Amino acid sequence: MEIDGPNPWDPQVRNPAFYKRVLVGGSLGLGESYMDNWWDCEQLDEMMNKLLRAPHIRRMKFASQLAPFVLALAANLQNKARAFRVGEAHYDLSNDLYRAMLDKRMVYTCAYWRGAGDLDGAQEHKLELVCRKLDLQPGMRVLDIGCGWGSFAKYAAEKYGVEVVGVTVSKEQVELGNELCAGLPVTLKLQDYRDVDERFDAVVSLGMFEHVGHKNHRTYMRVVQRCLAERGRFLLQTIGKNASDAGVDPWIAKYIFPNGEIPSLKRIASAMEAPMVIEDLHNFGPDYDKTLMAWFANFDRAWPGLRDSFADRPQRFYRMWKYYLHVCAGAFRARDLQLWQIVISNAAGEGAYRRPDM
Amino acid sequence: MEIDGPNPWDPQVRNPAFYKRVLVGGSLGLGESYMDNWWDCEQLDEMMNKLLRAPHIRRMKFASQLAPFVLALAANLQNKARAFRVGEAHYDLSNDLYRAMLDKRMVYTCAYWRGAGDLDGAQEHKLELVCRKLDLQPGMRVLDIGCGWGSFAKYAAEKYGVEVVGVTVSKEQVELGNELCAGLPVTLKLQDYRDVDERFDAVVSLGMFEHVGHKNHRTYMRVVQRCLAERGRFLLQTIGKNASDAGVDPWIAKYIFPNGEIPSLKRIASAMEAPMVIEDLHNFGPDYDKTLMAWFANFDRAWPGLRDSFADRPQRFYRMWKYYLHVCAGAFRARDLQLWQIVISNAAGEGAYRRPDM
Repeated sequence: MEIDGPNPWDPQVRNPAFYKRVLVGGSLGLGESYMDNWWDCEQLDEMMNKLLRAPHIRRMKFASQLAPFVLALAANLQNKARAFRVGEAHYDLSNDLYRAMLDKRMVYTCAYWRGAGDLDGAQEHKLELVCRKLDLQPGMRVLDIGCGWGSFAKYAAEKYGVEVVGVTVSKEQVELGNELCAGLPVTLKLQDYRDVDERFDAVVSLGMFEHVGHKNHRTYMRVVQRCLAERGRFLLQTIGKNASDAGVDPWIAKYIFPNGEIPSLKRIASAMEAPMVIEDLHNFGPDYDKTLMAWFANFDRAWPGLRDSFADRPQRFYRMWKYYLHVCAGAFRARDLQLWQIVISNAAGEGAYRRPDM
Repeated sequence: MEIDGPNPWDPQVRNPAFYKRVLVGGSLGLGESYMDNWWDCEQLDEMMNKLLRAPHIRRMKFASQLAPFVLALAANLQNKARAFRVGEAHYDLSNDLYRAMLDKRMVYTCAYWRGAGDLDGAQEHKLELVCRKLDLQPGMRVLDIGCGWGSFAKYAAEKYGVEVVGVTVSKEQVELGNELCAGLPVTLKLQDYRDVDERFDAVVSLGMFEHVGHKNHRTYMRVVQRCLAERGRFLLQTIGKNASDAGVDPWIAKYIFPNGEIPSLKRIASAMEAPMVIEDLHNFGPDYDKTLMAWFANFDRAWPGLRDSFADRPQRFYRMWKYYLHVCAGAFRARDLQLWQIVISNAAGEGAYRRPDM
C-alpha cells in the first residue's frame, strides 16, 4: 500500500492537512477526513485489509508512508478509554435505508454463504443453519434476544412450527416486525432483555451481544440461563475480536454503534457459569466480508432514491455509510474481526452435540 | 442415589469409619477408602454421574445420605490450594498395562465414536478427523506436542504422506514409539516442548495440554505460534472444565496425574495472542465416557495376566485403576468435564475454515 500509489487500494490524498489530522486524531481523524472528502480510495475495503495485516507487510518492506495509518491503527488498538458518544445518525435512520440495503427478509447480521448464490440465499441459509443447530421441533417456544425486524422469528415459525417471543429496544423494529410476522405465533416486544422472565425451550441471539458491554456479560448469561429450560440450547451469534484489551474503535463508536463493544472469547467464556457448557464454536468471519460488500452494493444502487431523505448533507452521509461498510469488510478480510456462532447448553444432555453439516 | 440402596449405582458401605474419612478427607478420602475396600459400588461411573448432577437432584428430593458425597464434591470444586504430589504408580507402570488397555495403536486420548463400532475403529476415526481438520497434504512437516507412543505420527505419515516430529517427556514412549514408527519419516524425541524451535506447516497436540498448568499456558501458545508457519493450523485436543476457579481433584493429583490441571476455555482463550485465531471448537465430551469404559473393559479382561506385575498390593492397584477410569467416565457423563478439539490458525488465511463432516 502506498499513499497516492497506482493501485486501487492505494489512498489518494486530496487535502494535505490529512496527515496532521490522522496523526492527531487517529482512527477518528482517518474516518472523519474521509467523510469530508480529504482523501479517497477506490477499494477502501482492501486498503483496510492490507492496513490491518501491516505488521506482516512491515517485516518485508517498510514503507514510510504507512506510518500515519499504522499509527492510527495502533491508537485504536491500545485505546482503553471508551468514548461512547451518541451516534450521529445510526438510530435515527428510517427503515427505508435498511429495506434497500438488506436482503428481502431484512436480516441485519452476518449471512452464511456456503452453498448460497446471493444475499437472499445466504441469509436464508444462515436462518436455516441456526434452526438446525438449535434442533427446533414443532411446538417449542423460542426466545429471540435482539430480534430486529423479526426475520428469524418469522422463518422459524413458518418452517419449524415454533412459537417465538422476540425482544428489542427499537420501537420501529417492533412495529414493522409485528406487521411482517402477522398471522404467525410470533410476539415482538419492546423490552430490555434483563426484564424477560419466562422459560423457553431454546434461546437465540443474533448480532445483539455486541451491544451488551463486558460489564453486563455475566448478567446477560444469567438471564439466558434463567430463561432456558434445563438441557435447552442457546445459540449466540456475535462478532468477536482476538484480544480482550482492544478498545472500541472511536470512529465506529461515534458514527455507527454508540455503546457497542466487540467481545473476546475470553470474556464470553468467563461470563458463563456452570452448568452452562459450550458445545460448539463455528467461526465464519470471512462471510461477513461478503455480507458487508453485498450490503454496500445494494445501498449504492438504491442511493439515488434515498439521497433526498438526507437533505442536509447527503454526500457526507453517503461517505460515512460507505466508509462504515468497507472498513468493517476489510477488518473481517484481515481476520482482525471474527464471526462466531456458539452453541451453549444449559445443563447438557446425554449425548455429544452434533453440528449439522451445511 | 442412596447409601446401601438397592440400585447398581448405590454405594455399599462396608466399614462405618467411611463416613468420617469422607467428611474429613473429601474427595481424597472417598477415593482412598475405595482403594482400601471400605465401600463398593457396582456402577461407580453412574454413581459419579448422579453425584455430579446432584444440585439438580437436591432440588427435587434431598436425601440426607447424600451429604458426605456432596461435601466431598464441594471440597474438590472449591479447592484452590493445589496439592501436587508425586504419583504413586502412574509413570512407573510398564507399557504392558497400556498395551492391554488401549486400542491396537495405543492412543491414550479420547476416541471419536461417531460412526465407529469399537475402540480400534473409534481411535482410527479420531486420528482421521484430526488429519482432515488440519487439511494435511503430502510433504508437509507436522509437529506433535506430547506424541505418546507415536500413534498420530504413524497414522499421519502412512495415510497422508507427511513428515512428523514428535516430542514427549517419557523415555519409554520414545523408545517404543520409534520402534512402532520404523521406516516412516517420523522422529520422536525426548524433549520439553519449550525447547522446540523449528517451523512446521501444522502443529497438533492431543491430550497433553492438561499437563501444562495455567502458569505456562501463554508460554505454550507462544511456542506453538513460533513453530507454526504463517497461516498454518494448530489442532489442540484437551479435556476442559466449565469454571476457571475449580482446583485439581486431590485424589487424581495424588494417584493418577501429578501436576495435571484441566484448563477452562477462558484460560485457553486468554493464553492466545493475535494473530492466532480460534476457527473451530468441537466438544465431544460424551465420547470420553465411552472411551474410558472401553479402556476399563480391556483392563479388566487383561487383569489376570497383569496382576503379577503388581506383586506388592495388586488388589489396591486394581481398585485404584478401576476408580480412576470410572469416576472420570462419570464426570464426562455428567458433563462436568468436556473434551474439546480446537482448531487455531496462525494469522489466518483468506477463506472461512470448514470443519470436515465426519
